[in-house]
Parts: sequence; structure tokens; C-alpha cells
Amino acid sequence: MPGINLETEKNKTKSTELRQDLVTGDWVVVSTIRAKRPDEFANKEINDESGEDAKGCLFCDPIASGQEKDVLIYGTGDSDWSLRVFPNKYPAFFRPTGGQIMHKEEGPYFRMDSIGYHEVVVTRDHDKHIGRMDPIMVAEVLDAYQSRYIDLMNKKSVNYIDIFHNHGKSAGAHIIHPHSQLMAIPVVSPYVQSELYGAEKYYQANKHCVYCAILEWEKEAQKRIVFENEEFIVFCPFAARANFEMWVMPKRHKPYFERITENEKMAGGEALQKAIAKLDKGLNNPDFNFYIHTSPCDGRDYPHFHWHIEILPKLNIWAGFEISTGIEIVTIGPEDAAEYLKNI
Amino acid sequence: MPGINLETEKNKTKSTELRQDLVTGDWVVVSTIRAKRPDEFANKEINDESGEDAKGCLFCDPIASGQEKDVLIYGTGDSDWSLRVFPNKYPAFFRPTGGQIMHKEEGPYFRMDSIGYHEVVVTRDHDKHIGRMDPIMVAEVLDAYQSRYIDLMNKKSVNYIDIFHNHGKSAGAHIIHPHSQLMAIPVVSPYVQSELYGAEKYYQANKHCVYCAILEWEKEAQKRIVFENEEFIVFCPFAARANFEMWVMPKRHKPYFERITENEKMAGGEALQKAIAKLDKGLNNPDFNFYIHTSPCDGRDYPHFHWHIEILPKLNIWAGFEISTGIEIVTIGPEDAAEYLKNI
Repeated sequence: MPGINLETEKNKTKSTELRQDLVTGDWVVVSTIRAKRPDEFANKEINDESGEDAKGCLFCDPIASGQEKDVLIYGTGDSDWSLRVFPNKYPAFFRPTGGQIMHKEEGPYFRMDSIGYHEVVVTRDHDKHIGRMDPIMVAEVLDAYQSRYIDLMNKKSVNYIDIFHNHGKSAGAHIIHPHSQLMAIPVVSPYVQSELYGAEKYYQANKHCVYCAILEWEKEAQKRIVFENEEFIVFCPFAARANFEMWVMPKRHKPYFERITENEKMAGGEALQKAIAKLDKGLNNPDFNFYIHTSPCDGRDYPHFHWHIEILPKLNIWAGFEISTGIEIVTIGPEDAAEYLKNI
Repeated sequence: MPGINLETEKNKTKSTELRQDLVTGDWVVVSTIRAKRPDEFANKEINDESGEDAKGCLFCDPIASGQEKDVLIYGTGDSDWSLRVFPNKYPAFFRPTGGQIMHKEEGPYFRMDSIGYHEVVVTRDHDKHIGRMDPIMVAEVLDAYQSRYIDLMNKKSVNYIDIFHNHGKSAGAHIIHPHSQLMAIPVVSPYVQSELYGAEKYYQANKHCVYCAILEWEKEAQKRIVFENEEFIVFCPFAARANFEMWVMPKRHKPYFERITENEKMAGGEALQKAIAKLDKGLNNPDFNFYIHTSPCDGRDYPHFHWHIEILPKLNIWAGFEISTGIEIVTIGPEDAAEYLKNI
């Protein structure tokens, strides 16, 4: 596929913008830069985008496959690398071009240019996902997240950085080669807003971090913990939104992911690797998403938040009830899930 | 499958309860009444629950397949019926047994019995989904929704009734025979809460219903309307969360679905049928969910809400970014989607 020169692309139907729901205030991204014709959505073969094997993989040799220039590379050279980060070729958020960000109204509605940074973090081995890596390699992944986070957090118009990982087709991975993504975006996500609000409210009432309270209880209850080391706990949350959901959480109160220490990267890498290895072995390598929830980088302080990773396996479908209400149904209790995963 | 006598079922691992997320206040349902052993989740064949053909279909002859007794039937008798409603055999919400609803605490967490009503609305023809029905039959479906809604809305502990429809495996339909579901539940869903709050806020600022303002603008803009008749408009919302998303909305300001008139059922049936027929023809019968958002039945008034149906085709996957942030990405503009659907 030839690269699209995004900044000179004039085709009106190929654009990307943030639109706000007039009722709820929530945002969506309308990104038509990989635009298909409407009738192409009818082709189930095409919609069912399959992964590719190592032969012809776009990420095994990113330079040969025409990816954009690396912004970070670990290793000594082109043929010797363990991890690299480059801008996503089809970004949902566009690098600012220096001009003003366009805010546009349409009748009662509001939209703005979808400005930001969208990068891909690729590890070398096509066949080795995070659960199958050496934990030290996962620490390197966390290190790359941190490095890119710090580089992007002070950019103009970046207020939140979302770091996530899709594994498997049903989890939305279009390319099977293991990779994570960073999106540095101008709005704070509603889900994180909701957690920030809850954490603040709990702190006001209890003078205590709500996530620390959860950890204290989990350590006492000893029925949802899957793994722990000196710095991190992996547990199935009490109100899990997905079957076998796990949270990977620093034991100490830490609001900001980007301040992760070397020691924490090692321990966090081990915890994340172990959690995913347990899914892999215990549940036959299911598809999953994981992502980091951390404090925004919007210039304000969030002393009462507590960053963590959420891992959501794709073992159930969010259907009409979940999509309609926002109330998810799980069919295995987090206690049973933890008991099973712990012993793997 | 033998029926499970839910009310005498003593197996501790088979239960259903509402659990509240300590941070966000959101609810999930932990429903283990169809409990699998943890390792059974590893079997992709079983997880990939397929639909069944008419032969052996559980809903073509609900009595023969051992479904529960009908609570509503349209037609003259057992062999002559056009629509029937019966309790879901594997409910996520259990009918109250007369005792107190159990509220339990566990450490800092809160949970309660998942009490309510979970019913299935089945139309007769195995092969004829809503887009392929005569519109008058879809009016009958709306009539059944209304009838069951009114019957359930005043039951003790029912505060919201969610009516939804899953079509196709990827939309969560375990049985392909066309059917909708009603869940009458003790909590008001967070998504509806968010719309209620937005509608109220908009009314306070503008002395006008936000959905009426949307309809007025859409009629003026004429670029996202897919279909309209005297009582309803079908349009692609400005901030669509899914490719080809459509909303079916009464033109007049109507807060309460259950007060739908005969005339509105006819017009609404036509609008819903046409919308789904357009998906069917234009996009090769894609999987989809639709659901009704209406005012709660919690004893309060919601004069500024405006009920409507949202139809979300399953043409894109909500992956790590969407699950992490609550910001959905669509890859076709609602204007292009509407233009395409309108002309089918």
C-alpha cells in the first residue's frame, strides 16, 4: 500500500475529526483516512480483516514495509533491534502542523480537528506475545511506553495519553505481530474522568486513596489475587467487566505512570508477563486487550489517582444489554477466575 | 437441556448478583447460573456459540423446547401464534421471591441480589428478521414491548426497563431465531443516566429539549436523514459510535416509550423496519444490536427526555482504545453513511 501524504491530502471525504455528542458530552473520532466506499462495508471477507503470518508481515521489517521513520529504537542498528516505535501510518490523531486547531460548529453540534500523536510500539519476535516473552523484555516495553509518554506529554494540545495493546482479531488487532499503540489526544477520556472523579470523591470522604483501599482489602480477603511480587499485585477486580479480567496495580500509591522507576518496570514487566502467560496457558491463548489508566497530562495535579493496567480477555461479547446500559454481564465470578488463574 | 429450578438451586457457585465498582459507581452483573468450569472457557469451539437452523430451533416451538410459560401471546392458540413473550430460561435478573432483597457488603465493596425480570420476545418466522417483516408486524413487536413494559414497570424494585435486540453471532445472539429481550432491573443504567443528565442540563440552559433541537437541525441540514414518515425520523447521529449507526426517533417530544400510541406504533414499526431493511440490503445483512433508550420507571418524572431507538451495526470492533477511553472511532462519516442508506 502506498503511503498517504496526510498533510497534503485534499480529498474532502478523507479526514479525521473529534465530534462531541450534544447530549452526553462524550467524544467520538470520525476517521475516514482509510476510507472505504459505503458498499465496501458489505463485503464480509474484507471486513473480517485477518492477521498475517510472518511472511509479508508489515511489522517484522518495518522499513521494508514502508512504515514511517522510527521515533525510538532499542538495539544497535537496522538488523539488530529488539523494539521500535514509529508513527501509525493510518493515524486516528494527526500531528499538529503548526496552525491553529480548527474548532467548528455545525448547528448545535461541536467538532474539532483530531490533533495528536498515534504511535505503534513493536517488539521484534513475530511469534512471541507478551505472555511468552522473557519478563525483562516486558520491562523494556514498559520502558518504551514511559519514554514515549514523557516525550509526548508536554506537546501542545496533548491532554491525555492512552497506551493500549490489542491481541487477536476479535480484540481488534489487524496485524498479528505483537504491538502496542500510544494515542496522545487533546481530550481526557470519559472512562478515566469517571475514575478520577470517583477517586477524588473517595479521598474527600475517607482521606485515603480508593485504589489503596482496594489493595488493602484484597490482601486481607485473599480470594481474588492472581500474582504478586514486591511492587505489583495482579488481581481479578470485584466488579469485573469481562470474564477473567485482571488488573495489574502498583502496590504503592502512584498517580503517574510516567514516573515508573527502573525497579517498578522490572516488577511490573514480570507481573504483566505472568498475568498474560496465565491467560495464554489456562485459556488457550485467548484474544485480549490491555491498557493503562493513568493521570491526565493536562497540567493539573491528580494526587489521589493510582495508575494501573487493566487486562480484558475477549471471552464474552458485549451485546445489546451491555451496549445499551453500560452494565456488563460476566459469567464467571472474579473469585473463581482468580482461583483458576492463580494456580497456573 | 433440562430446566434449572432457579429458586431452589443451592449450588453456591451458581448465582447472579449486581456488584458496584467502588471507584466509578457503575454496576456489573455476575451471573454464574449457566456456569462453566473455568477451563471450559478455553474451548474456542464452545465459546464460539453458533446459531442453529430452524430444525431443532429452541424458539420455533418454545413449548416443545421446554421454554417457560408465556406471559404474552398474540394469536389464537398454540399452533396459531405470531408473537410470544416468555421468561428467559437463563435470566441475568431473577424474579423476586417475596423476601427482602439482599444487600451485602464485602470489605469496602457493595453488592445486591440481581432481582428483576428477564423476558424474551419471539416472532414466529425463523427466517424473517425485523428488516424483512411486514411493517405491521414490527408494529406488533412494538406493541408487545409496550404491553410488557407496562406490566413490569410498577413491580417492586424495578427502576429501569431495557429493551434490546441482538441480531447475529458477533452481536451476541446465541439463537438466530429473531427475538428481542426485556430486562426490568433495579438500577438505572449509567448510559441512560448520562443522557438524562445531558437532557436536563440542556433544558435548564435553553428551555428546550436537546433531542428536539437535534431533530430541528437535522431537518434543516438534510444530510444525515435516512428515512422519515409522519411520526418518526431515522437518521445517522452526528457523533455516531458505530459505522452506519442510526437513531429512530419520534418527531414529537415524547419522554416515555410506554405511552406510545397506536398511530406511533404503526409509524415507528415502519421506520424501524425500513432502517433495518436498508442495512440488510445495503450492507449484506450485517449483525447489529438495537435498543430503546427511554425514561426510567423509578417514580420520578423525566419531562425533558425524549425516547428513541439506537441501531448499532457490528461493522467495526471496539478495541483497546475504545474500551480504555470510551471514545469510539468510526471509519465512515455519518453523512456518507446516511447518503448511502437513504438511497437504498
